[in-house]
Amino acid sequence: MARIVQKFGGTSVADIDRIRAVAERVKKTVDDGNQVAVVVSAMSGTTNQLVEWARDISPMHDAREYDVVVSAGEQITVGLMAMALQNIGVDARSWLGWQIPMITDDEHGRARIMDLQADEIIRRFDGGQVAVMAGFQGIGSDNRITTLGRGGSDTSAVALAAAINADRCDIFTDVDGIYTGDPRIVNRGKKLDRITYEEMLEMASLGAKVLQTRSVELAMNHRVRLQVASSFVDAPGTMVVDEEEIMEKEIVSGIAHSGNEAKITLVKVPDNPGIAASIFGPLADASIVVDMIVQNVSEDGKATDLTFTVPKDDLDRALQVIEDGKEELGFERVEGDPDVVKISVVGVGMRSHAGVAMRMFQALADKGINIQVISTSEIKISVLVSEAYTELALRSLHTAYGLDSV
Amino acid sequence: MARIVQKFGGTSVADIDRIRAVAERVKKTVDDGNQVAVVVSAMSGTTNQLVEWARDISPMHDAREYDVVVSAGEQITVGLMAMALQNIGVDARSWLGWQIPMITDDEHGRARIMDLQADEIIRRFDGGQVAVMAGFQGIGSDNRITTLGRGGSDTSAVALAAAINADRCDIFTDVDGIYTGDPRIVNRGKKLDRITYEEMLEMASLGAKVLQTRSVELAMNHRVRLQVASSFVDAPGTMVVDEEEIMEKEIVSGIAHSGNEAKITLVKVPDNPGIAASIFGPLADASIVVDMIVQNVSEDGKATDLTFTVPKDDLDRALQVIEDGKEELGFERVEGDPDVVKISVVGVGMRSHAGVAMRMFQALADKGINIQVISTSEIKISVLVSEAYTELALRSLHTAYGLDSV
Repeated sequence: MARIVQKFGGTSVADIDRIRAVAERVKKTVDDGNQVAVVVSAMSGTTNQLVEWARDISPMHDAREYDVVVSAGEQITVGLMAMALQNIGVDARSWLGWQIPMITDDEHGRARIMDLQADEIIRRFDGGQVAVMAGFQGIGSDNRITTLGRGGSDTSAVALAAAINADRCDIFTDVDGIYTGDPRIVNRGKKLDRITYEEMLEMASLGAKVLQTRSVELAMNHRVRLQVASSFVDAPGTMVVDEEEIMEKEIVSGIAHSGNEAKITLVKVPDNPGIAASIFGPLADASIVVDMIVQNVSEDGKATDLTFTVPKDDLDRALQVIEDGKEELGFERVEGDPDVVKISVVGVGMRSHAGVAMRMFQALADKGINIQVISTSEIKISVLVSEAYTELALRSLHTAYGLDSV
Repeated sequence: MARIVQKFGGTSVADIDRIRAVAERVKKTVDDGNQVAVVVSAMSGTTNQLVEWARDISPMHDAREYDVVVSAGEQITVGLMAMALQNIGVDARSWLGWQIPMITDDEHGRARIMDLQADEIIRRFDGGQVAVMAGFQGIGSDNRITTLGRGGSDTSAVALAAAINADRCDIFTDVDGIYTGDPRIVNRGKKLDRITYEEMLEMASLGAKVLQTRSVELAMNHRVRLQVASSFVDAPGTMVVDEEEIMEKEIVSGIAHSGNEAKITLVKVPDNPGIAASIFGPLADASIVVDMIVQNVSEDGKATDLTFTVPKDDLDRALQVIEDGKEELGFERVEGDPDVVKISVVGVGMRSHAGVAMRMFQALADKGINIQVISTSEIKISVLVSEAYTELALRSLHTAYGLDSV
């Protein structure tokens, strides 16, 4: 017998038939003798409707009220899911964030989980009851509903898995696992049986949209074994586990990409101490997250070019913030370019292997793809290239690192 | 300055534009210097969708989970309404049943309100904040969401009005007040400026569908002054008040009717002591509410005919219950007739006036309408007639009691 959390996203519970199918899947896990907690998102259409209404009524809405509105989506699904399970003979009850309680901080719309009391859920496991928990939502210190932000249901599921000390946390989604490259682009990508938390983190934050970064961080911190699998196909997915669980590490596990980047270049910035703080301080104040940063060595010791990336949606706002500080910063001009893509090679094995970066640069050069910005970490190398080369770059790198299936 | 509760039903908040219109109306009341609490139902389309999903997924659903699903409807509206108010400069916050808390018993789907703690809402009135409370929902002793049943939002509004000691509770709906007769049938009906709780209770329970019976009972018990008015027209509606507030009582305030009746006749029931209990006991066990009951004096002291009414939806089930007991009861045969209507003349003034009933019987006889069953209370006389005569009977009585507008 194992204790398992199963999380189903919005497309997996998009309508009544799919909710019924999910219930059957949960029943199978229960019938196999496991203790099961189910975490569900809102039905995908419902979320869209709620968000649209909220935007319609007031573009500058109160985040606390927004949370009241959108959290209704998960509330609907847990009730329906509990009914669907009961209907096929599985004892089940729904749990809303405030009922558990799933305690968060008070950052409405992007709250962080502080505590999760699962004693009652565990107690009911012994009586054979399935817990159906609303993902995405919690309760703040002021007794108001909070939401965890985009993809928050994954994080909810991992937090629950940690709280009940689950043997596994299954994230069911519309893909059947983590691939060495985006299956929509790289035809010969392979599904990975296993991947480490660290690799998954890089993949997630770099735009492999399967798992939310926060959920992987949380799983890593609490050593929760994650499985990413298809909600439509009954087959093993990809396990996200501790590095120690993987004997033979691949040098490169996969090629990730993110189109949600825009490049900003400040031409001829005075090369003074503190200039970086003067530029990035106001951006941080405007809640704009800056990612890759490259500062060239100045030729004459007086002025340099500074390039960095921001989320595509924030480009106009970032340019405005910078223009507002032009007098103080004293640069010559600023250029914004939304037509870029960040492509990354990820793998824990590259720590101990030289030449991984070189192979990337060579493969791109062979195809005549110009690298605009480079940034690296222990287990990944990212480059910014022109968006038009996305597919070509991904396929070339996939082949160059020997990831193509035969 | 007054303290006012304003309740808006599902059609009044059916879409974003209507929610905005309601917000404007609330703002006007606030700008006039009043302390305002708003109670809202779910958007009418949302409720229908949620109920449909719940029925789809499991016809025999768990009432506790059903409450989780349907209460999401009001949750959505309060959030949107608070946003709409904030958007036009009115300080507002939403309150869900469990946040207030609105404590109910544990009868899910038809819970009764036990307590409502409004201290925090009152405290915030002093800071100028409008409370936007979700109607229809509360919280049971087991920390789970309860709902009050059909029309429960009216009851929520009255309970809130009682708790905050409001000067008035406005129920905004799609009619502009209480009429002497159903405006869809009686063309010359008059809108009443005032009506007593007792009369309204008879009107409500007899099928004038404007206010839920429970809300009127609650208002009467706590002396909450109710106003029924149109959410689409800015004009005074009908005040429902204590009898003492009305100086000149009308003998008859209005003619109500209910098509939700079906007649059952047991032919040749043995006229034994305890026979009534033997018949109505099993019906009560089956949760079938019996309304009008007429037992004729038996001609020979041996057998009698017994006639009563049940809700139309329960007719088949009631007939089955009776057939199941046929051997024990020993009647000759049972007849069911769904094609009947209950028509009632209501008025507190009739207590002190003789001849009110006589006028009713005469008016119906003049039109050749046969009375099948009669029942009376202190302030109303009800008759059951063939459904085909509904309009004719209503109009004739409206004229006979001098209610037609000139």
